[in-house]
Amino acid sequence: MGNKKQKVLAVGSVALDTVKTPFGKAERALGGSATFFSASARFFSDVSVVAVVGEDFPQKHLQLLKNLKIDTRDLKVASGKTFHWEGLYSYDLNNPKTLKTELNVFEHFKPVLSDENRSQRFVFLANIDPEIQLTVLKQVRNPLFSACDTMNFWIGTKKKALLSLLKNVDIFLCNDGEARQLSGEYGLLQAAKWILSRGPKLLVIKKGEHGVTCFSKKFTFVAPAYPLEQVFDPTGAGDSFAGGFISYLTRSHNLDEATVRKAVIYGSVLASYNVESFSLNRLVSLKPSEIDSRYEHFKELTKF
Amino acid sequence: MGNKKQKVLAVGSVALDTVKTPFGKAERALGGSATFFSASARFFSDVSVVAVVGEDFPQKHLQLLKNLKIDTRDLKVASGKTFHWEGLYSYDLNNPKTLKTELNVFEHFKPVLSDENRSQRFVFLANIDPEIQLTVLKQVRNPLFSACDTMNFWIGTKKKALLSLLKNVDIFLCNDGEARQLSGEYGLLQAAKWILSRGPKLLVIKKGEHGVTCFSKKFTFVAPAYPLEQVFDPTGAGDSFAGGFISYLTRSHNLDEATVRKAVIYGSVLASYNVESFSLNRLVSLKPSEIDSRYEHFKELTKF
Repeated sequence: MGNKKQKVLAVGSVALDTVKTPFGKAERALGGSATFFSASARFFSDVSVVAVVGEDFPQKHLQLLKNLKIDTRDLKVASGKTFHWEGLYSYDLNNPKTLKTELNVFEHFKPVLSDENRSQRFVFLANIDPEIQLTVLKQVRNPLFSACDTMNFWIGTKKKALLSLLKNVDIFLCNDGEARQLSGEYGLLQAAKWILSRGPKLLVIKKGEHGVTCFSKKFTFVAPAYPLEQVFDPTGAGDSFAGGFISYLTRSHNLDEATVRKAVIYGSVLASYNVESFSLNRLVSLKPSEIDSRYEHFKELTKF
Repeated sequence: MGNKKQKVLAVGSVALDTVKTPFGKAERALGGSATFFSASARFFSDVSVVAVVGEDFPQKHLQLLKNLKIDTRDLKVASGKTFHWEGLYSYDLNNPKTLKTELNVFEHFKPVLSDENRSQRFVFLANIDPEIQLTVLKQVRNPLFSACDTMNFWIGTKKKALLSLLKNVDIFLCNDGEARQLSGEYGLLQAAKWILSRGPKLLVIKKGEHGVTCFSKKFTFVAPAYPLEQVFDPTGAGDSFAGGFISYLTRSHNLDEATVRKAVIYGSVLASYNVESFSLNRLVSLKPSEIDSRYEHFKELTKF
């Protein structure tokens, strides 16, 4: 995984997460969509993160991001408190119960990109307000490809802005429930057709422990999830998937079918490691050789 | 799919099903675990069905089984009514609501095999009382391999008999909920280890629209389900899967890893066709060339 690295721009949240699972609790641990994305994406490309944190954001977290070689020039510190999410997972690890969402400094987040970041060619817009996602995308001069994620809340409250965004991105990532909600179609294939007709070249539907299905107008790729002994904390699974997926495409510099299929598996590998521990713990200790060996194991598990 | 056919013995229910789905209703249509199994298994091997029906069982259904070249010498007609199941599917097509289970002639079913069937080498014990499954298995003189299915009801009421049966079969098929219930383990890998330690060489966990995971002590195979435009009626999905899976193994005459992997995909293909229509309608009209082409499409959908 050597050669000269491409860079991906990642816009999203950097947050403090309080998470309870059947296996333990983490209090105000480092989290957020852009954080999980970046910690995962760094294995295949450079990353510059665009986000805002409050004055309470621990210095050690900033230092950790820097140690991971994540470019933080557009990670702003604003007066106020950092975005805080509190969630509870029961044994159904696909669906956390949100106990608190304190947007804090994120409420007035109006990212203005540095000049260097306006020249990035690869853009990932992690789950935030679609109006902000579009504002950021428009600041990038000449993207080679862009991708976005979203959540049920934005589909419910800002569907129009989200549909405008979809016209402008190459890749859309969401989960199965969101694909159904957005399209109004119960069947996943029908939902996929509906979404692809709205703009994106590629649609990636994440189904948690049931894997990923990737749709384009030319092909469909169905991948199961990597079977794990134990899912310790699912927080960040979707964002670490996106990190592996998008950065592999970034490194490969194209969206051809064979590359997309491999990227889905690399994304799944990164997500499978991420959920083995709280916060970024596993992504921080992860080695490239471990990514390779789980990718090979994935091949073994699925070949016929 | 020519050459001299092996034969598989299939014990289970032949029933009349009343099924309501969001897409329509079928009244007292031909159903039952052994029926779906046999109509699917006939593509790869000969089948002899062991079951009982009542005097009300329509002659046209008997004729249909014969037209499909299913051996009915051990399908007995008893005085009384045929087993009748009534189920309702809402949009969550994985979980039907059972409205009626009228066992009727099945309540006193004590199968006694014909001499020819005591010599069969391949046995499938579809979901019925595990005590009956074991009684049948013991009548077979020298099976090369045997397989069984079960359901939550038997795990709850006859766990001991089921565990005795598991010591005597080579292959166990169940769904994910049943694997968890039987083992008392929440994680599927842990549940699989528990079950494999009870006897079977091979465990096949069916997850409906989320595919199949197959475990042995030597390998694990993870397969997604075939993505369908519309699931019309899921009744018999598990049994038609078993039909394709077991008959492919029967034809191949072994349980080696490569054969098992292919058999899982053939089973998934048969199940995917079965759910496209009520009762046996799709399995009856299905052509071997359609099985081959969906198998090839499965390869396309999953390769990376």
